Amino acid sequence: MPKVRTLGVVGLGLIGGSMALDLRKRGFAEVVLGVEAEPVNAEAALNLGLVDEILPLEECARRSDLLVLAVPVGAALAMLPQVLDIFADCEGDKIVIDVCSTKSALVEAVQEHPLRRFYVPTHPMAGTEYSGPWAAQPGLFDGRACIICNKDDSAPEAVKLVEEIYDCLNMRVIPMDAANHDVHTAYVSHISHVTSFALALTVLEKEKDEKHIFDLASGGFSSTVRLAKSNADMWVPILTQNRENVLQVMDTYMEMMGRFRKAVDECDGDAIRELIFQANRIKRILR
Amino acid sequence: MPKVRTLGVVGLGLIGGSMALDLRKRGFAEVVLGVEAEPVNAEAALNLGLVDEILPLEECARRSDLLVLAVPVGAALAMLPQVLDIFADCEGDKIVIDVCSTKSALVEAVQEHPLRRFYVPTHPMAGTEYSGPWAAQPGLFDGRACIICNKDDSAPEAVKLVEEIYDCLNMRVIPMDAANHDVHTAYVSHISHVTSFALALTVLEKEKDEKHIFDLASGGFSSTVRLAKSNADMWVPILTQNRENVLQVMDTYMEMMGRFRKAVDECDGDAIRELIFQANRIKRILR
Repeated sequence: MPKVRTLGVVGLGLIGGSMALDLRKRGFAEVVLGVEAEPVNAEAALNLGLVDEILPLEECARRSDLLVLAVPVGAALAMLPQVLDIFADCEGDKIVIDVCSTKSALVEAVQEHPLRRFYVPTHPMAGTEYSGPWAAQPGLFDGRACIICNKDDSAPEAVKLVEEIYDCLNMRVIPMDAANHDVHTAYVSHISHVTSFALALTVLEKEKDEKHIFDLASGGFSSTVRLAKSNADMWVPILTQNRENVLQVMDTYMEMMGRFRKAVDECDGDAIRELIFQANRIKRILR
Repeated sequence: MPKVRTLGVVGLGLIGGSMALDLRKRGFAEVVLGVEAEPVNAEAALNLGLVDEILPLEECARRSDLLVLAVPVGAALAMLPQVLDIFADCEGDKIVIDVCSTKSALVEAVQEHPLRRFYVPTHPMAGTEYSGPWAAQPGLFDGRACIICNKDDSAPEAVKLVEEIYDCLNMRVIPMDAANHDVHTAYVSHISHVTSFALALTVLEKEKDEKHIFDLASGGFSSTVRLAKSNADMWVPILTQNRENVLQVMDTYMEMMGRFRKAVDECDGDAIRELIFQANRIKRILR
């Protein structure tokens, strides 16, 4: 039996589209409504069977029992208070969640809203470097971690339903406060993207005079630079909203690069070896 | 019919072991001899069937028609002149190749050797972040690029045989001079390793006070940091021998990181967007 009659998904890209697919296929929702600003994406989402219907935000919010904001965090920041205002004008309890990669700004934006308790901030930690409805795929979330932030500020029944969503998506739920979330993701996600972007820029700079440089690109290079394909619409608001944490991690990172540079510059094999040994400890946490 | 009767492989790790496997299985060589300094690795190489026999370097060089140096570049630098000296003392033509990631120092080390023409510098661009005989795998080289350096300094029949080796391994052969090779690999391989090491160090530094940080590590993080598992024995000599090129790429890279840092620090969305758009051009070269 479906947990909710009507699920609304705002933003039918990689994350929203993949959630829509699995939550319907696995029987969590009976009807899936979508909101999608890009006409091409909206048509694709219908053709791909991600949703039953595309609607404007307000109508979708009114008709959904549970609404998922799966848009870049800048857009989510504008929509979240609107959605709670629409809820205030509807009968019965409705719940809204977001799935954005930064959490503090969203939480702050509605901290004083009378319907704050019907909002649950979440972050399913899954994805690929692709975007748009074509990137949506079944099983994207299976086995990954999902963070739920500031649970005590949400209604217990709202938290319970949201935990059921992520249980249905086969995710491990980790509770965390929003500020901590933003520090942690700066370390294990945001910095990886910045280093990939910088690596791509470095090599593309060289390519200006060396057309054949990429003939040599090895598998190692491809995997290190893969995230540089990521979408600016998503990453500009993440990096600006999580500015302070990202800057702090970038500074630590550049300090580490500086240590490496010094060791290489001085041809100090022992120092390079020690840095590599230290870095090798990453083995115990990588699958 | 085998192209050579006896192939000798010095260093039975990931690269040497994988070459030994495929060159025998695909009928390139009848007998495969090995040299391996680590007793544990030597025993494993025999048990895994990578080679028929383990011998000291001199005996292996004397008995082999074609010798592959698949050791870290520091060791190769010491062995290459020894091997050519041994060849000088043998009857019949023998050929030695190396498969190291930097080429200039090797080429310089034997530039004046009377048997220089029987040495062919090569670099099969394939690998994984694992090492040792257990990491050897069939098909490792299929479809990848292999660089052959300074062809004109080698005997034509030696170059022909070496091209046949890499044809047998299903590699695309790209000729290049050694100095150019070292510049290019600094850009498309060496810098990726340095940035991964630095990323691992950054996150491990944070982990000291945040034990659960890795619960959040996403697939993107794993792929960006994967190369940080790489072996110090291999990478210390690469980074020191290719010092000048590596430093130059590191400087460009740190300049790009600096541009990113400035844009994030100033919360300049347009500047971040422009940097990401530029970095996205990497799409046209990634598989």
